[in-house]
Amino acid sequence: MRIDNSPARGMRDLLPADVAVRDHVLESVVAVYRRFGYQRIETPALEDINRLQSGEGADNEKLIYEVLRRGLPAEVPAGISVRELVDLGLRYDLTVPLTRFYGNNHASLPSPFRSLQIGPVWRAERPQRGRYRQFYQCDIDMIGEPSVLAEAELIEATSEALAAIGLTGTTIRLSDRRFLSALAADCGVPDDLRNAFFIALDRLDRVGWGGVRAELAELGFPSDQVASVEEKVRSLAGRPAAKLAGALTEAIPGLAPSVIEDLVTTVSCLDRLAETRELNWEFDPTLVRGMGYYTGQVFEVTHPGMSSSVAGGGRYDKLIGRSLGHDVPACGFSLGFERIVDLLARQPSRDAVAVLVEADVPLADALEVARDLRTVTGSSAAGRVVETVRRSGKFGAQLKRLEAAGFSGFVLVGVEDGAVVRGELRALGGSAEA
Amino acid sequence: MRIDNSPARGMRDLLPADVAVRDHVLESVVAVYRRFGYQRIETPALEDINRLQSGEGADNEKLIYEVLRRGLPAEVPAGISVRELVDLGLRYDLTVPLTRFYGNNHASLPSPFRSLQIGPVWRAERPQRGRYRQFYQCDIDMIGEPSVLAEAELIEATSEALAAIGLTGTTIRLSDRRFLSALAADCGVPDDLRNAFFIALDRLDRVGWGGVRAELAELGFPSDQVASVEEKVRSLAGRPAAKLAGALTEAIPGLAPSVIEDLVTTVSCLDRLAETRELNWEFDPTLVRGMGYYTGQVFEVTHPGMSSSVAGGGRYDKLIGRSLGHDVPACGFSLGFERIVDLLARQPSRDAVAVLVEADVPLADALEVARDLRTVTGSSAAGRVVETVRRSGKFGAQLKRLEAAGFSGFVLVGVEDGAVVRGELRALGGSAEA
Repeated sequence: MRIDNSPARGMRDLLPADVAVRDHVLESVVAVYRRFGYQRIETPALEDINRLQSGEGADNEKLIYEVLRRGLPAEVPAGISVRELVDLGLRYDLTVPLTRFYGNNHASLPSPFRSLQIGPVWRAERPQRGRYRQFYQCDIDMIGEPSVLAEAELIEATSEALAAIGLTGTTIRLSDRRFLSALAADCGVPDDLRNAFFIALDRLDRVGWGGVRAELAELGFPSDQVASVEEKVRSLAGRPAAKLAGALTEAIPGLAPSVIEDLVTTVSCLDRLAETRELNWEFDPTLVRGMGYYTGQVFEVTHPGMSSSVAGGGRYDKLIGRSLGHDVPACGFSLGFERIVDLLARQPSRDAVAVLVEADVPLADALEVARDLRTVTGSSAAGRVVETVRRSGKFGAQLKRLEAAGFSGFVLVGVEDGAVVRGELRALGGSAEA
Repeated sequence: MRIDNSPARGMRDLLPADVAVRDHVLESVVAVYRRFGYQRIETPALEDINRLQSGEGADNEKLIYEVLRRGLPAEVPAGISVRELVDLGLRYDLTVPLTRFYGNNHASLPSPFRSLQIGPVWRAERPQRGRYRQFYQCDIDMIGEPSVLAEAELIEATSEALAAIGLTGTTIRLSDRRFLSALAADCGVPDDLRNAFFIALDRLDRVGWGGVRAELAELGFPSDQVASVEEKVRSLAGRPAAKLAGALTEAIPGLAPSVIEDLVTTVSCLDRLAETRELNWEFDPTLVRGMGYYTGQVFEVTHPGMSSSVAGGGRYDKLIGRSLGHDVPACGFSLGFERIVDLLARQPSRDAVAVLVEADVPLADALEVARDLRTVTGSSAAGRVVETVRRSGKFGAQLKRLEAAGFSGFVLVGVEDGAVVRGELRALGGSAEA
């Protein structure tokens, strides 16, 4: 009998060693965010299909797993649309549920509200290496804070979270959607071409100026406009905090002073943070970030070990209003959880002890030995891992199997002259006394 | 503008205080199970619809959220069945995914394999108070262990997990499907009436002997047969370990000696455990447990604070074989996670400190004060929770709001003579110095 036991297409099973790495990342991240006052919330995996397809999700809305209404007749009536058969869908991100959650529960929440969400999302993407159709997202958001206190704190908290996982030496790239709009206006980009303009700019780090020039030319931008954009961007990229305000005023005369002030405040916080932490930042005038809902500063974190960003986010002051009926300022940061997990090595051995039980030992005695070993003081705070294992086969071979399974020591329990005898705790293989 | 921000019907949002209780329960349970060698695995929420509807799930199979195939035409062709439109479903338990997981991954797993699964499942049940359509299950299973080492350890581990959450004084009720079959055979119950017979017996604790007698009579059992069942059950219920073997042999002469031996071994382990733990056990000849796949001992845990059981499980030696192609012995125990969470009170205050920042303080200085407070040594191992809060409105009123939001102390940061001045850490309200 051959049965296909694979998970559903594009999905995967997580083995104990996989879950151990993920748990290590989650615990580290949650501990850091908790210290900054972020509080975990949880929303259902299923949301109303109309909410999921309201336009906030951009291309992700095409990737929704749609759920059939319950209680349908066995046969579909002729002429009915598939859309009418569906009432729910699996969430494709944690932002759409967060805005609904805030609309539903804001009366019970503090203001500003520091939210931490960790959980799976689903997207029916074309299966490919390293991409799965169920994956975790990890978002922090501050809702109700209009000032750049939000931006500066979100960036600091996320840097600390990444450092706690072992990802130090990160670079924070910062820009502002309001700056990008002013840049576009200043260069005479028509409103209907702005998105295409931003997308071309955003690709600078992949295609270089030659590529960006070619793309903008293809979009019909005159060459002197393109040259002006290039000049402004070059004059701004990588400016230190002390020179950023001057450079911005000079390059984009139409930029509102409050935007400049916000950027200077954020980068002065990053400068201060960098005095005691191993991190870098840069003003990146071509950083756009994909989602259409951003309204202010946008940022992402890169790490030398990874080609794409490990975290990204920004301010979205107009999104909560669509659920709540009136605007509430908000800013969020999302960790690339799966990318980070892929980057980390698997955990080492479990440091477990085996209670090896001969066949003639009463089970109650064997379990008591294991119980004693679990409650030994002086072991790690979490307590020692102790498994009760029945003796089987050749002794040496069984010890080798235990060692391969991650055990670092064993205690042999047998019967001599009718009495249960418990051996000493002995180390397995090359490892020290457990 | 009024927008309905409720979660999908029958589902719920979990607020920070809800998640805090759930996390406390999960962390306690995971720490205990980990010490017994159980290792977490995770499977996707979506499974193949055919696997979910294979019969193992009994009535739960009627409650599946079915997922539409991707890439269907906008209009359903005439004469097509709803079934043909569906290829996936949301899991309704963790057992069906576990058997598939074991079939898929057994070559990479130790034997026996101690599995720990925690995660949401979905059932489209009629919405009612305290029942939700998305809820968590928490299962441990030992796969590959034929002896009652599995039963005895699963029961001990679960008792320890419940005690770690604060649920001591539990009672373990124990029976055996093989005993129930022998009882039915001994009383002359025809094969096709056995399920009905078991269901009637199982209801003894709710309807008493009067109710069971009436139900059995209604099912057509002769009154002398019913009297014989009652006599046997009464002679067995609550027997201590020392007298169980004799009572079983006497009441059910046809019962295999190995079944008696297994039961005696398990209860002798429970007796030993009860010497150092606050728990009780009883042999309950009318305990059946719902699922049809059980093949040996079955058990559940009750707590004085709850009308229904807090945990339940049993041996299922024939279930893994349906995925794997050959039988593998297995035994599992499931915690009633949502019931336990409902029983526990909400967590007390978060013991957070607010860094209260006057408007003229540079943000970088404010964040630095918060950073210092977070890294103070001598605080709890997890680190202190510190939030940066902008000063607003009347001072006394803001302090009251902070206290209500769970803050236990605050530090005021202002500017005096052009220099940033940081106040002392002061307690809020009646609480001690933070």
